[in-house]
Amino acid sequence: MRICLIGFGAVGQGVVKAISLKKRDIKNKFNMDLKVVGVSDSSGSAINPGGLDEDLLLDIKSKTSKVSNYPKYGNSAIQGIGLLDNIDYDCLIEATPTNIETGEPAKSLTLKAFKDKKDVVTSNKGHLALFYNEIINKSKENNVKFKFEASVGGAMPIINFSKKTLASSKIESIIGILNGTTNFILSRMTSEGSSYKNTLEESQVLGIAETDPSQDVEGIDAACKTVILANSILGIDCVYDDIEIKGISNITSEAIELAKKEGYLIKLIAEVSKDNLKVAPRLVKKNSPYAVEGTLNMATLKTDLADDVTVIGKGAGSLETASAILTDLINIGKLKN
Amino acid sequence: MRICLIGFGAVGQGVVKAISLKKRDIKNKFNMDLKVVGVSDSSGSAINPGGLDEDLLLDIKSKTSKVSNYPKYGNSAIQGIGLLDNIDYDCLIEATPTNIETGEPAKSLTLKAFKDKKDVVTSNKGHLALFYNEIINKSKENNVKFKFEASVGGAMPIINFSKKTLASSKIESIIGILNGTTNFILSRMTSEGSSYKNTLEESQVLGIAETDPSQDVEGIDAACKTVILANSILGIDCVYDDIEIKGISNITSEAIELAKKEGYLIKLIAEVSKDNLKVAPRLVKKNSPYAVEGTLNMATLKTDLADDVTVIGKGAGSLETASAILTDLINIGKLKN
Repeated sequence: MRICLIGFGAVGQGVVKAISLKKRDIKNKFNMDLKVVGVSDSSGSAINPGGLDEDLLLDIKSKTSKVSNYPKYGNSAIQGIGLLDNIDYDCLIEATPTNIETGEPAKSLTLKAFKDKKDVVTSNKGHLALFYNEIINKSKENNVKFKFEASVGGAMPIINFSKKTLASSKIESIIGILNGTTNFILSRMTSEGSSYKNTLEESQVLGIAETDPSQDVEGIDAACKTVILANSILGIDCVYDDIEIKGISNITSEAIELAKKEGYLIKLIAEVSKDNLKVAPRLVKKNSPYAVEGTLNMATLKTDLADDVTVIGKGAGSLETASAILTDLINIGKLKN
Repeated sequence: MRICLIGFGAVGQGVVKAISLKKRDIKNKFNMDLKVVGVSDSSGSAINPGGLDEDLLLDIKSKTSKVSNYPKYGNSAIQGIGLLDNIDYDCLIEATPTNIETGEPAKSLTLKAFKDKKDVVTSNKGHLALFYNEIINKSKENNVKFKFEASVGGAMPIINFSKKTLASSKIESIIGILNGTTNFILSRMTSEGSSYKNTLEESQVLGIAETDPSQDVEGIDAACKTVILANSILGIDCVYDDIEIKGISNITSEAIELAKKEGYLIKLIAEVSKDNLKVAPRLVKKNSPYAVEGTLNMATLKTDLADDVTVIGKGAGSLETASAILTDLINIGKLKN
C-alpha cells in the first residue's frame, strides 16, 4: 500500500513513526506492505515512488521543520493538493489541521483523492462536521474506502468498536467526554479547588490547552465529534449547526465544590441520540465510568442487547492518534485482499 | 446458519431471546439466516430441522422448565452430546455450566462438534481454563471456527476489541476487574462501611452472589478468565494452575476505610502479563478507569501505540452475555461468506 501523507504536524509525524515501528509486524500479520511515497507540509514535499525512509523523514522534520529538506527527494515547489497529481499512491492519509469554518483544505484533498479513485484515512474533524453526507456519498460514488476513526478521540477507538466489536447490538445513544483539554481543566479544578481562570492558565503552561483555547473550552471540538458520531454510528443526518453547545468557561470552583459534596463531578458531556445532540457541562457520579480524570476521553454506548458499554482512552497524542489511523489502514488493506 | 444450542439456562435462554429479537436485523445487515434447529437441557431436547420457534421455546422453558415439553418436536430421550448425532447443524452454541474440575461437558461437546466439522461458540470458561491449547489446536486441525468472547466478561467484549479494533497495536498487558460479584461486594463495603460477611449475605439475598459463593469470592472465576485472556490475547501458554490466586474473603471494612482516606479503593484485580498471571485484591485510584462500581467489569489494555485503552461493561446478564455470542456468530458468518 503506497501512502501519500498530507499534513506533517504531530499527527502526521506520529503516523510516520508508527509505520516505522510497525511495518514489519503489519507485513507479517496482515500481509500488507506499507510504503510512504509522498509527504507534504507547508514547506513543500518529499516524493519517492520507491518509498521514503521514515526515520529520515522524522529527523529532517525535527531538525529543520521542513520536509522539503529531505535529501534528493525534497521538493519546495510541490505541496498540498498539488502533490496528489505528482505521485502514484493507493491511500491518502489526510492529517491537516481542523478548520471548522470551511473544512479546508481537508475537504478538497479528500474529494480530489476520491475522484482519482484513491482510498482516504483522515484524522480531521472540520470537513466531516460540516459536510459529512456529501463526503460519504462521494466516497460511495467513487467506490473507494474512507475511514476516520482518528477524528474522534485519538486512541478511544469508538467507531470501529461500534461497528465490529458490538456487531450484534443496536447502538441507541452515546454519552461521553470527547475533549481531553476540558477534562483536564475540570479534573484539576476538582482536585485543587482552583478557579477556572488559573487552571486554564496552568493548562496553557503545560501545553495541554492552546494559546487560543476556545475550540476546546467552548465545546467546539466536542461538538464536531458529536456530529461525526451521530452520523457514522447512529445514522442521524446532522451537521455542526444542529448541535446545542455550551462550554466550560462559566464553571466556578464553587459549583464544583457543591457537586463534590453530593458525590458528583462536573464534566463536559456530549450526548448523541435521536432526541438530543448537545455538548454541555453536566453532573456525573463519582466512581462511575464518567468519572475519568486528566486528559482521558470516554464514551458510553447505550445498546439494546449489551446494555451500557464504555470505552476509555487517550483523546489525543501523536502516536495514540496514529494507532487509530494505522488500524484504519489495516482494515482497508483487509477489504482489498 | 443452523444453530444447535446445548445448555438452556440463563445464557442459553438469552441467546434464544436475542435471536428472536435480532434475526431480522441480522438478515438485513449481514445476509445471515439464523435458525435454531436443536436445543438441549437436562430434561432432553427439542429438535426441528425446519427451525424451532424461539418465543415458544422460551415460553415452554419458563412455564415447565423442560425444553423436552416443546410441542411435537420435544424429545426426552435425546439430550446433551447425544443431540449432536441427531441433527444437522452448522454451529454449536455451547452454554452449559462452567466446571473447573474437569471442563466437562463443555470439552467433550466442543471436541465432538469440531470432529464433525462444525463451528463452535461458547460462553464456558472451564474447558478453556484447563485445556486451552488442546482445544484451539483441535479447532485448527479440523479447520473450523471457534469463538469464546462470552467466556470473559459477558458484555465487556475485550477479545474482539483487541483483535479487531486495536489491530495496529500490540497488547502488552491486561489489568482488569473480571468478576462482577466481587466488585459488587467490595463496592458496597466501601459505600456502606459494612463487613465482608454482612455484605456477602446481602449479595446472596439479592441473587448477585450464589449460595456457594466460592467460585467468585475466592477468585476462581476471575482466574479462569485470566487464563483465557493470557492465551488468546497475549499468546501466553498457560493453564489454570499457573495463576496465583487470592480472593476477597479476608478484606476487612477497616482496610477499605483506610484506603478510602488515602484516595484509593480496594478491587479484585486480575493481571495478565508475561511477568505476572495473578488475581488478588489491590489498591486502585479513585476516579480512575479501575474505580467502576456495582457488578461492572472492566479491563485496561496496555498497548504499544494506543497507550492504555479501557473497556467497561456488564460482566454477566442473560441478554448481555448473549450479545457477545451473537457477535461471534456474525463474525463466523462473515468469514464463511
